[in-house]
Amino acid sequence: MDQFQHTLLIQCEDQAGLIYQVTNVIFHQQLNILSNNEYVDQERNRFFFRCVLSGKVDAYLLTESLKKVLPKKAEVRLVPKTKKRIVVLVTKEHHCLGDILIKNQFNELGAEVLAVISNHETLKPLVSKFDLPYHFVPTKGLSRQVHEEKVKGIIDKYDPTLLVLAKYMRILTPNFVEQYPNRIINIHHSFLPAFIGANPYGQAHDRGVKIIGATAHYVNNELDQGPIITQNVINVDHDHTPKSLAAAGKEVEKTVLNRALKLVFEDRVLLNGNKTVVF
Amino acid sequence: MDQFQHTLLIQCEDQAGLIYQVTNVIFHQQLNILSNNEYVDQERNRFFFRCVLSGKVDAYLLTESLKKVLPKKAEVRLVPKTKKRIVVLVTKEHHCLGDILIKNQFNELGAEVLAVISNHETLKPLVSKFDLPYHFVPTKGLSRQVHEEKVKGIIDKYDPTLLVLAKYMRILTPNFVEQYPNRIINIHHSFLPAFIGANPYGQAHDRGVKIIGATAHYVNNELDQGPIITQNVINVDHDHTPKSLAAAGKEVEKTVLNRALKLVFEDRVLLNGNKTVVF
Amino acid sequence: MDQFQHTLLIQCEDQAGLIYQVTNVIFHQQLNILSNNEYVDQERNRFFFRCVLSGKVDAYLLTESLKKVLPKKAEVRLVPKTKKRIVVLVTKEHHCLGDILIKNQFNELGAEVLAVISNHETLKPLVSKFDLPYHFVPTKGLSRQVHEEKVKGIIDKYDPTLLVLAKYMRILTPNFVEQYPNRIINIHHSFLPAFIGANPYGQAHDRGVKIIGATAHYVNNELDQGPIITQNVINVDHDHTPKSLAAAGKEVEKTVLNRALKLVFEDRVLLNGNKTVVF
Amino acid sequence: MDQFQHTLLIQCEDQAGLIYQVTNVIFHQQLNILSNNEYVDQERNRFFFRCVLSGKVDAYLLTESLKKVLPKKAEVRLVPKTKKRIVVLVTKEHHCLGDILIKNQFNELGAEVLAVISNHETLKPLVSKFDLPYHFVPTKGLSRQVHEEKVKGIIDKYDPTLLVLAKYMRILTPNFVEQYPNRIINIHHSFLPAFIGANPYGQAHDRGVKIIGATAHYVNNELDQGPIITQNVINVDHDHTPKSLAAAGKEVEKTVLNRALKLVFEDRVLLNGNKTVVF
Repeated sequence: MDQFQHTLLIQCEDQAGLIYQVTNVIFHQQLNILSNNEYVDQERNRFFFRCVLSGKVDAYLLTESLKKVLPKKAEVRLVPKTKKRIVVLVTKEHHCLGDILIKNQFNELGAEVLAVISNHETLKPLVSKFDLPYHFVPTKGLSRQVHEEKVKGIIDKYDPTLLVLAKYMRILTPNFVEQYPNRIINIHHSFLPAFIGANPYGQAHDRGVKIIGATAHYVNNELDQGPIITQNVINVDHDHTPKSLAAAGKEVEKTVLNRALKLVFEDRVLLNGNKTVVF
Repeated sequence: MDQFQHTLLIQCEDQAGLIYQVTNVIFHQQLNILSNNEYVDQERNRFFFRCVLSGKVDAYLLTESLKKVLPKKAEVRLVPKTKKRIVVLVTKEHHCLGDILIKNQFNELGAEVLAVISNHETLKPLVSKFDLPYHFVPTKGLSRQVHEEKVKGIIDKYDPTLLVLAKYMRILTPNFVEQYPNRIINIHHSFLPAFIGANPYGQAHDRGVKIIGATAHYVNNELDQGPIITQNVINVDHDHTPKSLAAAGKEVEKTVLNRALKLVFEDRVLLNGNKTVVF
Repeated sequence: MDQFQHTLLIQCEDQAGLIYQVTNVIFHQQLNILSNNEYVDQERNRFFFRCVLSGKVDAYLLTESLKKVLPKKAEVRLVPKTKKRIVVLVTKEHHCLGDILIKNQFNELGAEVLAVISNHETLKPLVSKFDLPYHFVPTKGLSRQVHEEKVKGIIDKYDPTLLVLAKYMRILTPNFVEQYPNRIINIHHSFLPAFIGANPYGQAHDRGVKIIGATAHYVNNELDQGPIITQNVINVDHDHTPKSLAAAGKEVEKTVLNRALKLVFEDRVLLNGNKTVVF
Repeated sequence: MDQFQHTLLIQCEDQAGLIYQVTNVIFHQQLNILSNNEYVDQERNRFFFRCVLSGKVDAYLLTESLKKVLPKKAEVRLVPKTKKRIVVLVTKEHHCLGDILIKNQFNELGAEVLAVISNHETLKPLVSKFDLPYHFVPTKGLSRQVHEEKVKGIIDKYDPTLLVLAKYMRILTPNFVEQYPNRIINIHHSFLPAFIGANPYGQAHDRGVKIIGATAHYVNNELDQGPIITQNVINVDHDHTPKSLAAAGKEVEKTVLNRALKLVFEDRVLLNGNKTVVF
């Protein structure tokens, strides 16, 4: 039995009385609800629930009791409120990584950075300042598959909860992504679905947009098509070059990734098909 | 018994199991929860709850059953999902009123405008276009008290749910305000608590701020000190004069008042001392 | 000779000393510069200049003197600071039109609405309140070409400076657009280039975006591809349906169109290929 | 003679033909204007000008020639486009400092951090990672004056262009501030002029605001009253505690200070009484 706080996450087919049924179980197991949220996707007739519990949780008993009163195929997850363990993948840009490292150093990330992996050596000196392992996995002479296997080998030694792509500029193969279902978070440097793919700031410049943005999303098998967690934008004007757009965009990317990580690390993001419910 | 949708609003001292107790009652009266929100103010140990119910509601039975399981002094309100009835008070500026009239005309306001009252004749032609009564109550030669009594006399004939001050530029006396407790909504042309009182755009210009805003709030007895419902801002720069600040500000005032009214008309705003809980 | 204020707009190939050359001419014609802006597009080596002049302007003399000192093919436009004359095209939605009519009524639009044209009768009662002509041009039984010719016939009687598509939900043919080069302004209900074409709110809902927007742009021959004038966005969440996205979006559309019109009516927008320079 | 780029900053009484006079001098000294901005404060009849020049600048000749054609008491500054030299003052919070150190490390700050000074030892380990001097000046047992003299002694050894208060939580005396006129930049953790003084997040929580912000400003002798450089805000709701407001606010503080420093380091901020002109 566990005395720490837990987050309870439920999703299932919707039906009348679900909140009553769930809170009935929680109440009679003498647990206290510190906060809770519900949402029903009317279109898909699907119920989503998140609550934070305090009290002595018997995880097996709680989960089984809930399953008895919930519709068939209900997904019930009980997550102890502990820090996530993450591995960060980067290429050459430091802005997202730097923000993560500083927050990690001061215990403000809501997760623990286990290691950083990169296809370049560029960011090794930065990571070393923070006494964290940096794995340089060069791509030269390797097939995509062999490179990914090497990366996977390193990741798996750390047994992370989540992978964070903090400007990792290589496209991952479906095979790699499938190894970490719903466990890879990426920051894309545009306001998706605008400017999918390469060089979004160049695309934005050519189109003459007056606002640019960034999008944090889960990675799935379609490029830049995974469930969106959060997005943000800034105003730009005719005076911006692709280069100054990219510089301005870095600050938004940093903010958006930071926001998404906070939400994910607090177990506030539930997947709903190719979309997210963010509590 | 009523077959329409209802909004149920509860606030009371917090204690364990409240959501269970409330949903238990709802479930056993065979009502369906379409959406619900809760919040606990830990500082004040206070529980806030809002849900939208569908089904045949027996208002007396529901309210009494809830009071039995809730802590003493619990406030329980059951509001049928019908349009609010509002009287709008204005002075000379048309931007907030115009927006309300257009929305009212197309049945998009979430309320019905019963009448407009003003201390000037300026906006009479606009209101007349929409075939609504316009009451001009001149202030000349009248004490503040007598003027307010006249205004009150007109208001009360319409028996409105709420009063909306859509740029009514006279300060209301405590005596007047007390007649309509928690029923008066004002739009203030600054980002409160900055620039309380007269001429906020002049004050903002003098201070050289780079952002201006607007605040919608309930009116209480202290000038510009009532519970804030919503706020918004826009960027400005050195090139703005007090006049151009005011012009830019009008658009924000309109947006903020519109947003606040939507929230209030949907019974999403609960009072928590001098603050609001907005679901 | 004209004593009113004028806006002087120049664009040409960039070369050293252009501001000196231009201000030299202005100074020696005893005109006063009230405000000015310049921009050089380094990529295209192109110079853009806007200034507001006061004083007795001899338009011919000023323009000719400028052309003498400017590079060949320089575009020089001298626009008296008078109100633009606009014809507004709508379909069924009132939110953008309503805002324009209110502003027009109170002389705040910076332009004069000459008439409203629609392919539906829906908005006639609204327009009639403001004593403006409403031309209903039904599409039934007409080819696109014949319908557009009828619309064009009405427009041309008013001899407007600009056409404003305030939610006109028909695609215009290249032939129509060519009749009004750089004189048609449209509001598109998405954050372009995301969600081009029909039903952008449905598209946004399906993609699960966390921000929606609106874009005001000049109309050219490619659907939703014209030069962008201004854009804005609002945050949305998983709880939005396509319908509530559309409702929320209306407020942004109104704000964005209003902002774009203000910029265009003040001659602050210069075309730079398929992009705009906004001073 | 200097071949690098220079920024030319002028402010003086307004009169007709100033841009012509200035560009005339620039043109005839065979300098090229890469970008320029002007603003006239009509209220104070004051002209502000900034341009970036390329070409061989004879600083003495340029400045003297300009003074000849400008009104008396014109302020003319010619600043070579080189990196500013800054000393950063902090107390215990790392978020603004961390962002500065990362940017400094990667040569993206637009300035060079010479040293960090603090009244606490807390941030020494962070600064040491970046191989920069950290001066801990304890306050214990020292009068405010003596402490400031010690701080000043350290600062002056580095001969910085500017001082950056990156969450330095001590109020500086007028005597100290006068030593560095218009050279101290502070980040204040509220949307000034709201919540001046101590504990702005506690004040914001008590007032129940729906938006919080941060303000970067020059420091003068009145607490939180110096000329504002830039501001930004984020939305908050009833669910925020003073602690979570402070956490959310840190991201805005970081962004706002970063933006202000960029503007100041590029010589884009001119003082206009107690306000700023930001080009």
